Amino acid sequence: MAFSPFEHPFLSGLLGDEEVSVHLSAEADIQAMLRFEAALARAQAGVGLIPADAADQIAAACKVFEPDIARLKTAVATDSVVIPELVRQLRHAVGADAGTHVHLGATSQDVIDTSLMLRMKTVHAIFADRMSEILALLDGLDQRYGSNSLTGFTRMQAAIPIRVHDRLESWRCPLTRQRASLTATEFPVQLGGAAGTLDKLGSHGAAVRAALADDLGLADAPQWHSQRDGIAEIGHRLSSITGVLGKMGQDLALMAQSGREITMSGGGKSSAMAHKQNPVASETLVALARFNAVQISGLHQALVHEQERSGAAWTLEWLILPQMVIATGSSLRLAKEALTRIERIGTTDPGASA
Amino acid sequence: MAFSPFEHPFLSGLLGDEEVSVHLSAEADIQAMLRFEAALARAQAGVGLIPADAADQIAAACKVFEPDIARLKTAVATDSVVIPELVRQLRHAVGADAGTHVHLGATSQDVIDTSLMLRMKTVHAIFADRMSEILALLDGLDQRYGSNSLTGFTRMQAAIPIRVHDRLESWRCPLTRQRASLTATEFPVQLGGAAGTLDKLGSHGAAVRAALADDLGLADAPQWHSQRDGIAEIGHRLSSITGVLGKMGQDLALMAQSGREITMSGGGKSSAMAHKQNPVASETLVALARFNAVQISGLHQALVHEQERSGAAWTLEWLILPQMVIATGSSLRLAKEALTRIERIGTTDPGASA
Amino acid sequence: MAFSPFEHPFLSGLLGDEEVSVHLSAEADIQAMLRFEAALARAQAGVGLIPADAADQIAAACKVFEPDIARLKTAVATDSVVIPELVRQLRHAVGADAGTHVHLGATSQDVIDTSLMLRMKTVHAIFADRMSEILALLDGLDQRYGSNSLTGFTRMQAAIPIRVHDRLESWRCPLTRQRASLTATEFPVQLGGAAGTLDKLGSHGAAVRAALADDLGLADAPQWHSQRDGIAEIGHRLSSITGVLGKMGQDLALMAQSGREITMSGGGKSSAMAHKQNPVASETLVALARFNAVQISGLHQALVHEQERSGAAWTLEWLILPQMVIATGSSLRLAKEALTRIERIGTTDPGASA
Amino acid sequence: MAFSPFEHPFLSGLLGDEEVSVHLSAEADIQAMLRFEAALARAQAGVGLIPADAADQIAAACKVFEPDIARLKTAVATDSVVIPELVRQLRHAVGADAGTHVHLGATSQDVIDTSLMLRMKTVHAIFADRMSEILALLDGLDQRYGSNSLTGFTRMQAAIPIRVHDRLESWRCPLTRQRASLTATEFPVQLGGAAGTLDKLGSHGAAVRAALADDLGLADAPQWHSQRDGIAEIGHRLSSITGVLGKMGQDLALMAQSGREITMSGGGKSSAMAHKQNPVASETLVALARFNAVQISGLHQALVHEQERSGAAWTLEWLILPQMVIATGSSLRLAKEALTRIERIGTTDPGASA
Repeated sequence: MAFSPFEHPFLSGLLGDEEVSVHLSAEADIQAMLRFEAALARAQAGVGLIPADAADQIAAACKVFEPDIARLKTAVATDSVVIPELVRQLRHAVGADAGTHVHLGATSQDVIDTSLMLRMKTVHAIFADRMSEILALLDGLDQRYGSNSLTGFTRMQAAIPIRVHDRLESWRCPLTRQRASLTATEFPVQLGGAAGTLDKLGSHGAAVRAALADDLGLADAPQWHSQRDGIAEIGHRLSSITGVLGKMGQDLALMAQSGREITMSGGGKSSAMAHKQNPVASETLVALARFNAVQISGLHQALVHEQERSGAAWTLEWLILPQMVIATGSSLRLAKEALTRIERIGTTDPGASA
Repeated sequence: MAFSPFEHPFLSGLLGDEEVSVHLSAEADIQAMLRFEAALARAQAGVGLIPADAADQIAAACKVFEPDIARLKTAVATDSVVIPELVRQLRHAVGADAGTHVHLGATSQDVIDTSLMLRMKTVHAIFADRMSEILALLDGLDQRYGSNSLTGFTRMQAAIPIRVHDRLESWRCPLTRQRASLTATEFPVQLGGAAGTLDKLGSHGAAVRAALADDLGLADAPQWHSQRDGIAEIGHRLSSITGVLGKMGQDLALMAQSGREITMSGGGKSSAMAHKQNPVASETLVALARFNAVQISGLHQALVHEQERSGAAWTLEWLILPQMVIATGSSLRLAKEALTRIERIGTTDPGASA
Repeated sequence: MAFSPFEHPFLSGLLGDEEVSVHLSAEADIQAMLRFEAALARAQAGVGLIPADAADQIAAACKVFEPDIARLKTAVATDSVVIPELVRQLRHAVGADAGTHVHLGATSQDVIDTSLMLRMKTVHAIFADRMSEILALLDGLDQRYGSNSLTGFTRMQAAIPIRVHDRLESWRCPLTRQRASLTATEFPVQLGGAAGTLDKLGSHGAAVRAALADDLGLADAPQWHSQRDGIAEIGHRLSSITGVLGKMGQDLALMAQSGREITMSGGGKSSAMAHKQNPVASETLVALARFNAVQISGLHQALVHEQERSGAAWTLEWLILPQMVIATGSSLRLAKEALTRIERIGTTDPGASA
Repeated sequence: MAFSPFEHPFLSGLLGDEEVSVHLSAEADIQAMLRFEAALARAQAGVGLIPADAADQIAAACKVFEPDIARLKTAVATDSVVIPELVRQLRHAVGADAGTHVHLGATSQDVIDTSLMLRMKTVHAIFADRMSEILALLDGLDQRYGSNSLTGFTRMQAAIPIRVHDRLESWRCPLTRQRASLTATEFPVQLGGAAGTLDKLGSHGAAVRAALADDLGLADAPQWHSQRDGIAEIGHRLSSITGVLGKMGQDLALMAQSGREITMSGGGKSSAMAHKQNPVASETLVALARFNAVQISGLHQALVHEQERSGAAWTLEWLILPQMVIATGSSLRLAKEALTRIERIGTTDPGASA
């Protein structure tokens, strides 16, 4: 049983995100890796590097191939990366002749990084949709309660009356900006070969890469195996989103604490106090914001990626990015849930809110 | 399938630690929680707060009770904590009369934090043993190669010849210190009730807590539900251990890079280059050190634990501490593995090492 | 004497950046704050909110006004922000009638955040210039040594021969991307009043803000006093730049360690070993990259900026952003210095580099 | 003018700590370095490594020597460490014959790390005193208001009534623990020579080091130049202290926000709202806690200190530890100030606090 709260048997009820985590699973990773190998073979056949029917056989095998996971795990223990063993198994599945053309001129990182980009692209589309839903909920709240009065608090002290609209804007504006940045993210293919020079593809390197990118629906770009600023950029976007939602969660929890500024349905039970309605979703938004704010540091540390491939820096990414993705997914899910539960914000009587 | 590399179907081959992760599982958590409830009932019967046979029935039920995990997950989604639903199920399992005496005067955090301490105590004992094994390996290397010559490097430049013993000392001394600190860690019971005052135990609060601690083999201490410095201390120790091993890993990888200073067996394969022997374990030690160095920040953020219980700060701990534990376990496992693979360090010819 | 290594009497020789730090000084801050107050008065006169000659008097006073710094310091001790006392002094300097029109409808954060944006805009222009210089140096090295041979290293093990051009590309490409992102950064004016609603400017709020932005050369945008994603974005850019340069520094230090791959002039002396040439600039690039990678976490924590103004979150920004700016400046300075010292990279004999 | 808010011309009014920062100044560093050189000479004369009157001359010179700071700064720019130039100047000051005996067998790091330990010892004594004062203030508040009623809040929701004593305990207990740990910290001398082996002291290494430690009032310990767990330990302690005080600050700010639970004198002014009393010290305690929680990550990253001396990891410590010290000093200062301003906590009427 998984111990990570994001996939834990019962904690995932609060912290998990099944729609997103499926794209981070080993299964999804393997499927994306096989898409890479099939598309690579097609691209190489396109320029005559390998026979067309070898590419067909590889592509056909990739559609049905199911690797021996236990052997993959054993291999990772010594190789750190799964590709040498996966390619060995795949070559065997493809068969004697065509099998020798699998993974031509590619290296482990090409497959693993490209698989990541394929799945990040899918996940980002989910996130953009969720952000749209949250923005629509905020618009709805604005229409219903925007003109209500609320006490503006600065430095944790009552300041002057504001409208509910003003508070909603402080949640809506940054989320709108973050959504625009999120949807502008590019997901480039990675293809470089052993040390980034595509040395085994001769003069066909650029053409193969472009065809591969096109086949996979990714952006074409020179190899970036030791240039990890794109990974840090993705992490920054995720942490910015959870940070923006964390501010909203903190505001909601403080409004709920005051007992006058908001009415929310639902809320968590206490094992000791039957009367309480804990603002669980709101607090969790704060926790997830602080969690991603911690993690982002690791992706920046991983920018110090020495030479042509740093096992240390790359492994650090593996340990950090996936959980930032889930944390963001859960945060978006909980933000939507929290907003849906709002039954009233502010008051129609300006004097009463202070 | 789990996406966290610590429990991932194939990445866990490198990064997982099955001996340790079992203690972080939901199953182990539930078992420890049931130990708490049984011991609490016994302690309360001991001072006459509940009937002795109710305590017996509770203890008997706790031994065989298997909760409905799906319902726990659903409940966590709204309550954030599992205890209200777990206690409801447990009371039902215990039966009509005695069931009403389950969890008397306790709160969710009492059960969850005490369960954590029980399991941390077990895991720390495993870590202490592993550290002893590593220290023994270092002693063995010192006996075999300690008098060999090695180039001392300062600021990444060859400095003066040193002995292998000197380099080994830079790994051994801090590990010895960390082991001493680790084994001095105390694991206190947590019992405070709804807001820390044990308000429902009348004058028996301190006696019940002492008996509970004794029964569970934990230290007796006043409730610490909103005082999280002990958690930060545990995290600091874990990250100090992985940091010390990360220095060793970095040294090993640099020695391996030079190609002259060390000979190691094994090593990872490359999918593109058959000749390579990648120092996978050494690099992973660096990655795990940097990972924990990132995470420790989150446990310090969680010290800002407002009022009598902060859902935000507490949830942040849940997201961070378990993976620090596994990272430490994996680091100790890999350090041992890396040292076992050393076939030679340094040279018997002082001139040749420079 | 300053203890921060960025402005320390002797450590700043390595770590400081005088060209940049002048823009972070209290003096520069005050000058920018006075520019704000003058421009605000002009903008308000433009829409008839204050008399035109009051605006003239305010603007004239702002040009020559020198605040009593000791009093500012005393005031900050109780108010946390300097503005109440600065405005008090400025009003006195402006004189009886016009003085009452100083700072109309604005709040401390308007002045402080806008001053920050003004100075960030200037500093970013310096950074963009330095990045251009570094890119030109890399182009020059490519022309001179690009076709030389170098051993490609993956996972800290010799992999296959690459060209120096390939290594240079791994430094040049991400820096080019970062420069493009840096120069696309927008610096918005901040004007919101007490709680963000510009309540004292009546119907003129938007017009005054637009005129203020125009006067100051900043982007016009709705108030963002509790929306700090723009600050995190700036920090992310800075840390991405130092991260990219940290990778270069690590590569240079490793090349220097091998003793064959690079020749650099200069280098640091040792107090104990006269023969050494320490790659001081390269190592410092790594240190600064890791420093900013630590700091960026704080700016993401500060996104949880509760209600209309969080003293805690805002103060955290003050403690973190300025030093990230200097760290970036120093990193760019040292990167340029390190590249200038390269006298050769790689070898014209492919066999010799392995 | 310094830009760091800890020593900034006006921001230091809130964030600085003059009593502490003096020990982090370049002046204090140089004085401690000269104490090291004098004590080293005495220790070496004691075992006959250098002439006794050379040691006397060195000690005499160290008492009055004032280095040329401008030259130190220039030297640091190329050497990264100040010692080669400082020793050069000191030798010149000591004079022809005795001068050659200055710094015998020592390396830069010996002087710099020992100077740090000397000053950390002093600063820790200041911190222990301040913690005692805070604990005494908490005891006083307990005596005056401990039996008052307060609403216990869990998960930001009113839970059950508690006594003020209970809340005070949640501040007092962890501070008591932290003070005990702080005062147990050992400060070891550092003496290792070029690569840690004291190669130039022959058989006298251990005796010289012990005499040096004794002379300086530091603990004797084998060299630890590449073993940085002691530095991480210091940082952890500092961040634990600010974390504990940050919880207190957050509690105070929330109590002040409710408007009923506490009365405090003083409080910050707003430039826009004359009626406000901002809980400036309390908020700053939170900011400083989060600041140190960010920084601690850097000291753990610096544990990956490769080989016999890592310029990158060591420089990272220089950038981080001093500001953690000041942040801790300021936090202790502000905590004392905040507690002094409390005029009432809780209420004598249990019903009214809910």
